[in-house]
Amino acid sequence: MATAAPAKGLEGIVAASSGICWIDGDAGVLSYRGIDIHELAGKSDFEQTTYLLWNGKLPTASELANFRSNLADARVLHPKMNELLGGFPSDATPMEVLRTAVSRLSVYDEDEASNSHEANLRKSFRLTSQIAMIVANYDRIRKGKPVLEADKSLSHAGNFLWMLTGEKPSETATKTLDIALILHADHELNASTFAARVIAATLADMHSAITGAIGALKGPLHGGANEAVMRMLHGVDASGEDPVEHVKKMLANKEKVSGFGHRVYKTEDPRATHLRRMSEELGKSSGNPKWFNMSRAIELYIKQEKKLNANVDFYSASTYTTLGIDIDLFTPIFAISRIAGWCAHVIEQHDDNRLIRPRADYTGPAWPAVYVPMEQRSSQTKIWPAKPSA
Amino acid sequence: MATAAPAKGLEGIVAASSGICWIDGDAGVLSYRGIDIHELAGKSDFEQTTYLLWNGKLPTASELANFRSNLADARVLHPKMNELLGGFPSDATPMEVLRTAVSRLSVYDEDEASNSHEANLRKSFRLTSQIAMIVANYDRIRKGKPVLEADKSLSHAGNFLWMLTGEKPSETATKTLDIALILHADHELNASTFAARVIAATLADMHSAITGAIGALKGPLHGGANEAVMRMLHGVDASGEDPVEHVKKMLANKEKVSGFGHRVYKTEDPRATHLRRMSEELGKSSGNPKWFNMSRAIELYIKQEKKLNANVDFYSASTYTTLGIDIDLFTPIFAISRIAGWCAHVIEQHDDNRLIRPRADYTGPAWPAVYVPMEQRSSQTKIWPAKPSA
Repeated sequence: MATAAPAKGLEGIVAASSGICWIDGDAGVLSYRGIDIHELAGKSDFEQTTYLLWNGKLPTASELANFRSNLADARVLHPKMNELLGGFPSDATPMEVLRTAVSRLSVYDEDEASNSHEANLRKSFRLTSQIAMIVANYDRIRKGKPVLEADKSLSHAGNFLWMLTGEKPSETATKTLDIALILHADHELNASTFAARVIAATLADMHSAITGAIGALKGPLHGGANEAVMRMLHGVDASGEDPVEHVKKMLANKEKVSGFGHRVYKTEDPRATHLRRMSEELGKSSGNPKWFNMSRAIELYIKQEKKLNANVDFYSASTYTTLGIDIDLFTPIFAISRIAGWCAHVIEQHDDNRLIRPRADYTGPAWPAVYVPMEQRSSQTKIWPAKPSA
Repeated sequence: MATAAPAKGLEGIVAASSGICWIDGDAGVLSYRGIDIHELAGKSDFEQTTYLLWNGKLPTASELANFRSNLADARVLHPKMNELLGGFPSDATPMEVLRTAVSRLSVYDEDEASNSHEANLRKSFRLTSQIAMIVANYDRIRKGKPVLEADKSLSHAGNFLWMLTGEKPSETATKTLDIALILHADHELNASTFAARVIAATLADMHSAITGAIGALKGPLHGGANEAVMRMLHGVDASGEDPVEHVKKMLANKEKVSGFGHRVYKTEDPRATHLRRMSEELGKSSGNPKWFNMSRAIELYIKQEKKLNANVDFYSASTYTTLGIDIDLFTPIFAISRIAGWCAHVIEQHDDNRLIRPRADYTGPAWPAVYVPMEQRSSQTKIWPAKPSA
């Protein structure tokens, strides 16, 4: 029997030991393997950060060269995969396409049947490179453009922008996306990572775990939130109103203002600090500061009125938009980064596994409820619980 | 910060309130909505049981007729789906195919974007009917046989057997599978159902949740266990040895004997009671009692030697084999049943949602760890933790 009081949403409950990510929500600290996210955002790149997440240390120059070459070598999609992407109707959302395509990839993975540390690392390279390619290729396919060959000389961020746009990306665009990928790469037992660990803990393979994680990331309370922010900003823009006046009306109408507050952070989300700065800089350098200015006005108002801080999603919306990226690719880009953390967590789970199987607090009819024979049943019998009591 | 001691695997931790399934592991009680599983296995059928799980009450005759007709009407696969199934290499496992196909189905679901109670119920009918069709169709396709039209006059169990084998199933086969489906239909917060709820709790859609659940079910510690049991029985058979002597050697070699023990049940798994009986009866009526006799000998020995009880997986192996079902369809058949419970849990989660987001007990390097510049890094630096300490 269950031995603890119910913890709805498992808030504050420790579900696993992990050496990957340390968060102090009260102090606004995020670190990977103990290294502060500000250090990583300022000095590192996505590849070194991913190496750190997977291996627990920063790479030497030769280890990094090897790591980059493993990632670049994995930039090959089976021809059947582009066929699969081409078979979707054009209104399929990039997240359902990505979820399906990653599930499909396992069939081509020669390590599918092994959960060993080494096999999982090999799968991690493939998944990291290929998730980015799937997102870029599907976007080109749905727009009627030819898919492009990967450029193995570019970074993870640079190659994604190249495969998406067909133009060699600017240094600013590559650097901005690279930092965004560092910031999103891991976040301890967030819902998608936790889903991946629950799945992996049955000793299911990494592709099963990552497919489930993509499904979780799709949710508006998780990865989907950055898209909701941008839809809101477009709403403000279309209204022609002052952003603060518009948001006041939204609050009066009990509409949700997306991009604020966080289950874990009680102070500024340290990732928002960097995304705010990048949104501002990109606005200036591109000559289009509209989205940053609008965001900043809303942030200050919500902070004053609701005492809520902007979270990672709030400024990623204006940052990605100023980079010219479509709204429905924001959550897929989150996946292009978070795959680094998902893989680290699946590797850690498989290396020292225990099935994750909690209990429920039962609220239904008491056992043994009578099995009423068909002819004595009534359509008026209480439906339990058809809807929540609230 | 986390407020509780670490609970590895969340054993004994209450993760959600739920009115669907009540288990008393000490007393060996399983019930759906308070009705004992023995009552349901003895008096009900899979359709009434599914109605009960989704609606919290048993159906009247007219409610049941309506329910059956909704399920039958959903027995239609988009033509693209059979194309998708035909595109897999013939060594793709049925579980990776099922995971991919269910993810792909969302594109055709007109209710994809809604998590309302009513939309979720409509999706539940489609998923329940179509998961069975996908499993049957893929098996025929990989064997080079034509796929068959669904027979809308048959029960869920009967139609699956028809679409799988191309023969009108016997009453015994249909009844046996139907009871197996009742027994597997729900089991509170087992790993796949919990994965589905974690995913659904981000407000991701039902297809995302069910895709993740299928991935979890694939794991050898969960749904994959019934396949492991049958592989073991084949190993015993091939050895020509006495089953007990063979199992003694396995134990001496520290090999895992699958199908025994359960995280929750400390006494006989009430599902095993029915599967043992059906395995025995089928063995007699088919004139092939080999698998039952072998299983029974192993069960008695493990009970005496290890004090472990046979679980739901142990006798489902011999039961399905005696029905003529391939080993790698055992876990998909589990999914054909458990979809009833998964849908009930996703509906319940969406009806009264809270994000499921636990914390981790951090075991890595202390923050703030130094960001060592590239030129000062050494390949000897401790890798933390590359492997578990054990």
